[in-house]
This record gives sequence, C-alpha cells and structure tokens, in this order.
Amino acid sequence: MKKITNSLKIFKIGGGIIDDQDQLNQFLEDFSKVEGAKILVHGGGKGATNQLKRMGIEPKMIDGRRITDAETLQVVVGFYAGITNKTIVAQLNKYNQNAIGLSGADANLINAVKRSVKDIDYGFAGDLKENSVNGKILNLLVENGNLPVVCAITHDGNGQLFNTNADTIASAIAKELAKNEEWEVELHFCFDKKGVMKNLEDESSLILEMDFEFYQELKADGIISDGMIPKLDNAFEVINSGVKSVYIQHASNVGNEIGTKLI
Amino acid sequence: MKKITNSLKIFKIGGGIIDDQDQLNQFLEDFSKVEGAKILVHGGGKGATNQLKRMGIEPKMIDGRRITDAETLQVVVGFYAGITNKTIVAQLNKYNQNAIGLSGADANLINAVKRSVKDIDYGFAGDLKENSVNGKILNLLVENGNLPVVCAITHDGNGQLFNTNADTIASAIAKELAKNEEWEVELHFCFDKKGVMKNLEDESSLILEMDFEFYQELKADGIISDGMIPKLDNAFEVINSGVKSVYIQHASNVGNEIGTKLI
Repeated sequence: MKKITNSLKIFKIGGGIIDDQDQLNQFLEDFSKVEGAKILVHGGGKGATNQLKRMGIEPKMIDGRRITDAETLQVVVGFYAGITNKTIVAQLNKYNQNAIGLSGADANLINAVKRSVKDIDYGFAGDLKENSVNGKILNLLVENGNLPVVCAITHDGNGQLFNTNADTIASAIAKELAKNEEWEVELHFCFDKKGVMKNLEDESSLILEMDFEFYQELKADGIISDGMIPKLDNAFEVINSGVKSVYIQHASNVGNEIGTKLI
Repeated sequence: MKKITNSLKIFKIGGGIIDDQDQLNQFLEDFSKVEGAKILVHGGGKGATNQLKRMGIEPKMIDGRRITDAETLQVVVGFYAGITNKTIVAQLNKYNQNAIGLSGADANLINAVKRSVKDIDYGFAGDLKENSVNGKILNLLVENGNLPVVCAITHDGNGQLFNTNADTIASAIAKELAKNEEWEVELHFCFDKKGVMKNLEDESSLILEMDFEFYQELKADGIISDGMIPKLDNAFEVINSGVKSVYIQHASNVGNEIGTKLI
C-alpha cells in the first residue's frame, strides 16, 4: 500500500536578508504563499553587532566567528530571540500564518553544549550533538496549523543560553523531523545568491543540480568558495539522513525550485 | 453530577523581582514546585531602561508610564521577549518545567491596539480590548504539559508590535481561560511586598482578605496607596469575570496562600 506522507518544508534565512528590511518583508510575503506545512529558521544579521557598538562594546570576531562573552550573549539573545524573531512572527501573522516564535530553550527545542576550548575560547557558543532537537513540540505545533519560527539561540538544559549557528540548527531540525515517517522533508537555504555558482561573476553559471560526487569534483577544481564549503558539507550530511532534498536558493526564489538542488 | 475541573494557576511577576537575579532565581525555583497547571506572566524591570541609557538614548517617562517610540520599542522587545523571557524559560527548564516562552505576537496570543492619543502620545503602547487573548494556544500547550511563559509584548495582527502592561496581560489571560469550564482559574500577582498593607510601615498590618465593598471603604479611608489602586480595580474586575480568586503576594510566598486574597 502506498505510504501517505505530507510535505514539510524547512526554510532558513540568513543575515543578508534579515539586515535589509525591504528584502526581509518581501521574503516573508512570498514565504507566506508557500503551501503546506512549513518551518522557518533564521539567523541574526548585523543587528546585534550594531547594538553592541552603540553600547560601547566592540564585538569580538575571529575568522568571521563571534566570541560570545556573557555581555555579548545578552545582546545577541535580545536581538535574535527578541527583536528579529518577534518582528518576523508579527509580519507573518499579518498574512495569517499562525506563526509562533521559538528559541532552542523553549519547550527544550534544541539542546546544545558549550563549544570546547581548543586554540580559541568562543565563549557561550553552543554546538549540537546527536539528538539535540525535540521534534515533538514542532510536530504538535505544525499539526495544530502553526508555523514555527526558530531563532539561532539554544540552551544546555541547565539554565545556560547559547549562540548557535543557524545553518546547523536548520539542518538538525530537518534531520530530526525526517525521522517521522509522516513527513517528506525538504530543506531550503535562502540567501543572497542564486545558488551555487561555477563562477561568482557569471549569473548564468548556476549549478542546477549537485550530488556528492560532483561536489567533490567541484571542490577539487577549486570552484567552491571557502564560505560555501562548510554549508555544502553540512547539506550533504542532511541528505544522507533521510531528508528528501536540499535547495540552495536566492531568497526571492522561495516558493519555486530555482537554485541549486542537492541530491 | 459534580463537574470536574482542574486548577490552573496564573502567576505574574514584576520588575522588582526580575531586576534582582537572586530573587528571580529563588522565585523560579519555588515556582517550579507549585503543582498543577501553571502559566507565568512577566514584566520587564529596569533592564530595558538601562540598555537604552547605555546606547545613549534617554528613556522618556511621563507619570511613571513609558513613552515608547520606535527605537525604544526595539530595545523593549529585545529585553522583554528576548533576554528576560528566554532567561526565565531556560531557568525553569533546569527544573524540568517544559517552559515555552511566548509574546503576544506568537500564535496571535494577544491582540492589542495602539493607545489613542489624548493629552499624551505614548507611542507604541498597546491596550487590550475584549477578547484580546487567543486562549486556544494556551490550552493546547498546557494540555501538552508545557508551562507557557508570557512576556508583556503584544501585536496588532498587522505587523506592529507593542509594549503592554503586564498586569493587564495577566488579567486578560485569566479572564479568557476562566471561560473554559474545564479550568478553575486562580491569578496570583507576585511582587516585593507581603500583600496589601493597611500601613506600609507595619509588616503585620497585612490585609488577609478583601472583597469589593471592603476595598471601597479602604480607598475612601485613604489606606490604599495610589500605585495599588489601578492594580486592585483591575483585580476586582477579574474576579467578576469568573476567575475563582486573585492573590496579591510577596514573590517568596509563591506556592502558599500568604498574602491578600481578593474575593
């Protein structure tokens, strides 16, 4: 007997979209038209950094990664879980999406551990282990007709909040929900490029489809930019975990399949 | 046949508790021991004001009420819905409370309207009308074994967030949930006094029980302080709306009935 599954689409948007009010609003309007069960995961953009500077605190970054001391964590939590998350939820609810905002602390959604100190102490940066995600609350809310909007803040279950990478969160959620045989899960990373490009200067050099073998070839040929490598490594791991497909798309293509499809 | 109802206790804590890390942590530990279905509503304390000052923004207050311009709203949302709400949720989840943080925007929990401008323009201050509260999401979460933690941010359903009085929110939630015949609702206002005192200087002058008639007498005798009058007017309105009882207690008395009971 043919198994009946429902489509569940998880979208992740990053700083490039969030920082631009018009782009963000356009994305949310387009996103609200996507049919079927959905979840949105978002990063934080530059807002927290700007706020820190206004408070006279110079943000610490090493190789593009934030060092999150206690004071920085407060501001980051305020921005990601407060300002950005509730602005997005309020805007989606303008389109009757029944959006509900969650951090990893809420209903123990995402459990993380403090990143261990090797060369660098990243402070209150949280890393995820296996089974970090509480799928039950997401299932409850999605089945109730809500649209979970998840921000990139996690906790250790013992009162400590953390700053965690939003791509990592989106992937962990996709993998966890793919365990539920009822869902056919798609994961969409939406950002400010059309997808994975063979040549960043050439808009028409979009790679439409990529499997792991092709990815290795492109990496060996030096075609994949440094910034894309961890994203793609992560995305292929997701495919191997039962998620049906992963798309890397421009935010303006939410709702269609224009972009790079990983298979 | 005797109707079976379950107890649902709604607790509201204010700035005096939130501003003191030790008091807040003690409250949360005590609160986690209260049995049965619970909801927590919280205000914001001085944190947002302090953060505004650090950003070089002088907070505007008239008669103790905040004027919330757009910039102030952002900081207030970040503090109340982000920092305070997620800190409380993370701490409660240390005690396995399955806490889930919500603002009024989340799942359209609380709908508000911008306070109309008469003498003073309060900016993005939200006032509640009848039927402002979406009881369904609270029922869903409480029945699922979660502890909703609601902050004092609301929305207009059209993308605009507001700053709203936390006592007003706690009362509106109590009144809405009291409509559900399944719940016997109690509302507890927890703050930094033992309850309503006949004489603020005399700790033993606690008024144990107060009905509306007695309240009017005390008001006429000038015994109720100005700050308490709106709280008590509000609390008696709640009693008249089907909520079983309202307590005004010191935060350290959460879990017992020491304080002023309104009937």
